[in-house]
Amino acid sequence: MAEPDPKLAAGSVGTVETRYAELPEPVALDCGRRLHPIRVAYETYGELSPQRDNVILVCHALSGDAHAAGFAKSPPEAGTRDGFGAADRDGTAGAGLGWWDGMIGPGKAFDTDRYFVVSTNLLGGCRGTTGPSSIDPATGAPYGPDFPVITVADMVRTERAFLQTLGIERLAAVAGGSLGGMQALEWAVQFPDQVDSIVVIASTHALQPQGVAWNAIARNAITGDPDWQGGRYYGTGRAPDAGMGVARMVGHITYLSAPALADKFDRRLQSADDIRYTLTEPEFEVESYLRHQADSFVKRFDANTYLYASRALTYFDLARQYGEGSLVRALQGVTARTLLIAFSSDWLYPPAGSEEIEQVLRALGKPVEFEVIEAPYGHDCFLLEEARQTPVIRRFLA
Amino acid sequence: MAEPDPKLAAGSVGTVETRYAELPEPVALDCGRRLHPIRVAYETYGELSPQRDNVILVCHALSGDAHAAGFAKSPPEAGTRDGFGAADRDGTAGAGLGWWDGMIGPGKAFDTDRYFVVSTNLLGGCRGTTGPSSIDPATGAPYGPDFPVITVADMVRTERAFLQTLGIERLAAVAGGSLGGMQALEWAVQFPDQVDSIVVIASTHALQPQGVAWNAIARNAITGDPDWQGGRYYGTGRAPDAGMGVARMVGHITYLSAPALADKFDRRLQSADDIRYTLTEPEFEVESYLRHQADSFVKRFDANTYLYASRALTYFDLARQYGEGSLVRALQGVTARTLLIAFSSDWLYPPAGSEEIEQVLRALGKPVEFEVIEAPYGHDCFLLEEARQTPVIRRFLA
Repeated sequence: MAEPDPKLAAGSVGTVETRYAELPEPVALDCGRRLHPIRVAYETYGELSPQRDNVILVCHALSGDAHAAGFAKSPPEAGTRDGFGAADRDGTAGAGLGWWDGMIGPGKAFDTDRYFVVSTNLLGGCRGTTGPSSIDPATGAPYGPDFPVITVADMVRTERAFLQTLGIERLAAVAGGSLGGMQALEWAVQFPDQVDSIVVIASTHALQPQGVAWNAIARNAITGDPDWQGGRYYGTGRAPDAGMGVARMVGHITYLSAPALADKFDRRLQSADDIRYTLTEPEFEVESYLRHQADSFVKRFDANTYLYASRALTYFDLARQYGEGSLVRALQGVTARTLLIAFSSDWLYPPAGSEEIEQVLRALGKPVEFEVIEAPYGHDCFLLEEARQTPVIRRFLA
Repeated sequence: MAEPDPKLAAGSVGTVETRYAELPEPVALDCGRRLHPIRVAYETYGELSPQRDNVILVCHALSGDAHAAGFAKSPPEAGTRDGFGAADRDGTAGAGLGWWDGMIGPGKAFDTDRYFVVSTNLLGGCRGTTGPSSIDPATGAPYGPDFPVITVADMVRTERAFLQTLGIERLAAVAGGSLGGMQALEWAVQFPDQVDSIVVIASTHALQPQGVAWNAIARNAITGDPDWQGGRYYGTGRAPDAGMGVARMVGHITYLSAPALADKFDRRLQSADDIRYTLTEPEFEVESYLRHQADSFVKRFDANTYLYASRALTYFDLARQYGEGSLVRALQGVTARTLLIAFSSDWLYPPAGSEEIEQVLRALGKPVEFEVIEAPYGHDCFLLEEARQTPVIRRFLA
């Protein structure tokens, strides 16, 4: 964990702390179950206007958390896995700077001089919001695989119920990238009269089959690890770290473009001399990098949360959920202004998915803007290309 | 295992059997070790000319074997792993039709009316050629991780030593796709005076960093499986099937293009009704397909062979091996005529890799042809697009 960069202080929301809210009522889930109690971890940046009309909800992606902006001295509370969450050694989530710090703050894309920005950890999460590592009141032990299989719609219902505890009934905007963008779309479809606008970045109305496959591979890596123990690994002193590591490696490569990988690593060897004839040790820098990504991820993230969130994002399919197979029908009731941003090199959530949404909204006469940003870093652009997204988003929100 | 399709009988080499040759001398390996004994599994199709000048060596890819053409009643002998190789239940390798049956036979791309086609299982293999599942004479037990880490150059040295046992000193052509294409290139560089031409399909002079990463992920999936047991799983009754399954899934998706996956599976669900809210069961047809691919692969392929072959193909780098970093220098001594074929949708071995080889050979004044075939199936095209490769190869060989 590093001290905040003084250079960032000007546009920073400053030191922040994750807070927690208990939802007063159960949330009815798509699967038919009702979940209670639910705790939601959240952070807020900026000031709520007296009219409560300046709220932007920011939704995170698969491995994020509520700490979206500013500097946190300690990571959000984690689940019950022994030692889990105690050390976020790479500082990429939870502690340190928020995952979207470049986008949220005074004068930034989501301008906290003007907006009250709310960020929550999603339902099923492992960073403070109720999820599979939380205690199941029925048993007194962590839910594990008894946690209900949730959907993006369930995440959004939970976010809405949480916002009501803050007295917020209406959103100026919902924004997010990837799985976060799915939540924004879901908000616009499920609660059209409560959302003025949505900002959907590097996302889609339904993951393409190759993306479904990558997610299935990642989940198989986890569930095939004997240390997963059918999902009941909490308290056993063993967790599916090997499988999670492989899942993270797969994710990582799908988040980057091939040219970005080539630029960053080429075929450089770890040893200056030559190959060392080893099967198990990293030989290429890119191999070593993957190993590091895997190692740091398993220290900060819960495998079951990965499974639940991955399942939710593969299930997400607006046409199936709301249109009997037709995206036109699904989007008919949308009233929010929509901004879609995609990145030219994103092959996991390719621009074509956003373009489909744009065309349907346009055909339906809805206000929609679509921007493809030419950038080389693949899906990760939504976290990296802050400078290029900022003017687009500021103009849209103005 | 199915009976041969009578429609194929006209262009078929008929019923074939894998044979085995013991190499009389040790093979000197890149790592400095000398390997002995070495047995090579092979098949031949067509007749050797009295001048022994009509030999085409066909080299297989990562998961192939010596059974390239015709119909085999039983799979080649496998290694020593209990039960391993006993049943090739999906019939895709070993038994049934050869893996390149559409390309090898009377009137086909590699025309057995004219050529004597030789196909071997590569060094380190698990389908009859000496590999990590073979008995180490020093211990009387399978080599496992004590098998030397081999290179594509070592595979080619072994192929050459084997051909000498047949009295063959010169090749009319060496041909292969993917790792097989690397072997063809290696032949042209290492033994320029013994190769008249090479046919290099969907291959490269050095795998791109993203390909290095996919291979590292697949190997990590295997070595991270506790049943791998440091590579000493033979005879234990346990093998790293879960890790191998994940490795195969990763491989499979990288061999196909995203549009091909979308065409084949779309987002179709397994259940006609709706999603079933399950983390561990396949919900989408593409998930079920991946599961099936994994299950059938672990029954027919040895995990250690996968590791060794994957390592060899990531090491392969002609510029590093022969040119002190320069591909021009590495290819200076090539005398073989070269045919390069790539496929527009192959993102694992993209056409750019072949184009680089073409440009260097052309700059050096060497005879080279390069054909990019527009086809949608990704890397797997080299196994699927037989009809479109055939005229190109026949014209080149004529």
